[in-house]
Amino acid sequence: MENFEHRWCVIMCGGIGSRFWPYSTEEKPKQFIDFLGTGRSLLQMTFDRVKEVVPVGNIVIVSGERYRNLIKEQLPEVTVDNILLEPMRRNTAPCIAWASNYIYAKDPKALILVTPSDHVVMNQREFEKVVNRGFEFARENDSLLTIGIHPNRPETGYGYIHIGEKVGNEIYQVSKFTEKPDLETAKSFLASGDYLWNAGIFIWSAESIIGALEEFLPEEQEAFHNYYNHIGWQTEPLSEIFGRCRSISIDYAVMEKADNVYVEKADMGWSDLGTWSALHSLKEKDAEGNSSINARILSREAGNNIVMTDCGKTVAISGLENYIVADSADALLICPMADEQQIKSFVEHLGK
Amino acid sequence: MENFEHRWCVIMCGGIGSRFWPYSTEEKPKQFIDFLGTGRSLLQMTFDRVKEVVPVGNIVIVSGERYRNLIKEQLPEVTVDNILLEPMRRNTAPCIAWASNYIYAKDPKALILVTPSDHVVMNQREFEKVVNRGFEFARENDSLLTIGIHPNRPETGYGYIHIGEKVGNEIYQVSKFTEKPDLETAKSFLASGDYLWNAGIFIWSAESIIGALEEFLPEEQEAFHNYYNHIGWQTEPLSEIFGRCRSISIDYAVMEKADNVYVEKADMGWSDLGTWSALHSLKEKDAEGNSSINARILSREAGNNIVMTDCGKTVAISGLENYIVADSADALLICPMADEQQIKSFVEHLGK
Repeated sequence: MENFEHRWCVIMCGGIGSRFWPYSTEEKPKQFIDFLGTGRSLLQMTFDRVKEVVPVGNIVIVSGERYRNLIKEQLPEVTVDNILLEPMRRNTAPCIAWASNYIYAKDPKALILVTPSDHVVMNQREFEKVVNRGFEFARENDSLLTIGIHPNRPETGYGYIHIGEKVGNEIYQVSKFTEKPDLETAKSFLASGDYLWNAGIFIWSAESIIGALEEFLPEEQEAFHNYYNHIGWQTEPLSEIFGRCRSISIDYAVMEKADNVYVEKADMGWSDLGTWSALHSLKEKDAEGNSSINARILSREAGNNIVMTDCGKTVAISGLENYIVADSADALLICPMADEQQIKSFVEHLGK
Repeated sequence: MENFEHRWCVIMCGGIGSRFWPYSTEEKPKQFIDFLGTGRSLLQMTFDRVKEVVPVGNIVIVSGERYRNLIKEQLPEVTVDNILLEPMRRNTAPCIAWASNYIYAKDPKALILVTPSDHVVMNQREFEKVVNRGFEFARENDSLLTIGIHPNRPETGYGYIHIGEKVGNEIYQVSKFTEKPDLETAKSFLASGDYLWNAGIFIWSAESIIGALEEFLPEEQEAFHNYYNHIGWQTEPLSEIFGRCRSISIDYAVMEKADNVYVEKADMGWSDLGTWSALHSLKEKDAEGNSSINARILSREAGNNIVMTDCGKTVAISGLENYIVADSADALLICPMADEQQIKSFVEHLGK
């Protein structure tokens, strides 16, 4: 692979996965869990996926202080300096700004793949093609490239990208970003064929992203730059830098404003596992359509449920259809799949 | 209390409580569990209830070998020789035959209260009245007295007793025992006012029950008699005696056949906690009608459920009405209350 030694990856690993409570908790969020029952957590699967296209020594994890031990345990291959632990949660823009400056200080010629830690990609070969193509484009163009997923349903929970002029193999200009549309709009997007899901996966050179940060997040960029370049007589502590950072997504802060934004089409069996339904649709099911993770299901007149435990216990269900049953040592959730947005409200009540 | 030193109690503690799986398991059945969340198991509550009317040293526990440690742990006041551990399960008649002969060998003047270990009685004062009256009757009459509960609903899961001629204060001859009636019959029983529930609680003198056993279960009676009286040149091991015993209830073997059978009316807040519904009806409920044992319920559009865990976990339920949710370390059950007879079929599938 060309420029292999300059390829880097930032795995964003700071989410708290509250939608999957109680299976996912702030203490051990979704990305650290073996969600598909494969023996590897989502973070580990992300790492496995990425290390086929990026040198292991160039994989950077950005997460929170409290996940230090989980990361060390799950990814012993990652060196301590490549684990960036944020002093506070500030959404993706500050996360990417920090990691980009860290990488740029080490390798000004770096090409960077940025990816969430809690998505799945079923088609590894296609993923590698997409990334190789993207790195090549980023090396040749001062560009901010986002990966656009072929939509397969009128999902209202995702952002969409309207594609513009074709500029290369599977690569297009971005005509417009649209945040979560209503169902009618989502259906028309799907029908038109000109819209892709915004997967939150990016490829760019360190130089391009830092150039964009200088333009659109100048204060944050300056602080992280100084942090690695010791300008002046002392270095500002990270906690102060983060304390001043706005909590803002990279999409909103940069991608929707820059004019060198491109999208690469991808059809690689991607899922953000954002909902129980999404997870259920990915899992193998028994004759009644029940899927299980870490559970042995006994069912009577119970179908199309997703059942998850943290200890492999037997779950006997009767008279349940389309439910989520998620059990952990501390809590048990039983909720219709259609009401899964209620889960967050349960989590909010937990502390009270 | 008269004849206090001759009062004895047999607590039958050998059931396996499969209807309450997974909260109750063969390893730790219902009677050993703090079912009402009072801090005392059903067995302990039975012991507490009985020791107000019987000397502690005269309380005999009959159970299975595997429950030795649970009994010692839960009832440290009971001496080792008063714990009779059956080598195999043989229903109530052999259990009572063994215990009666054990007690008779120690105290031929004994008056015996026989009670299950997994029922609740809410009105202790009334219970004491009932027992005192029963002991008095048993002392004065060669009689087999069963406690009959005022029915409050047309329950089809219980046996009924048709009362005959009144022979004393709240005590009647038994005209007829009727096993589990259909709903129509149960309704007519309730309306007539002449039927009581058969609670499986008995009071008799050791002499009377042994006389009845000699008549109706002569082989079993002889074997247990010999066990305590060393007739012949050696004692037969208990396992052989039990091996030959028929598995038969005391109702079927003796009560339905003897002619000195009486019933004492009781209205003492009794429940056999035989079903989740029975338990649910006894428990305090939240505003939505949910009852919980060892659980913190968060509910949304979920009412009239009974939720039980073995570790006090939070249970978040949504879109559930009239369900049983029973969680243990090894298994989780979610089942409509109306289908609780299915629970046994789940338990049967467990080993497979």
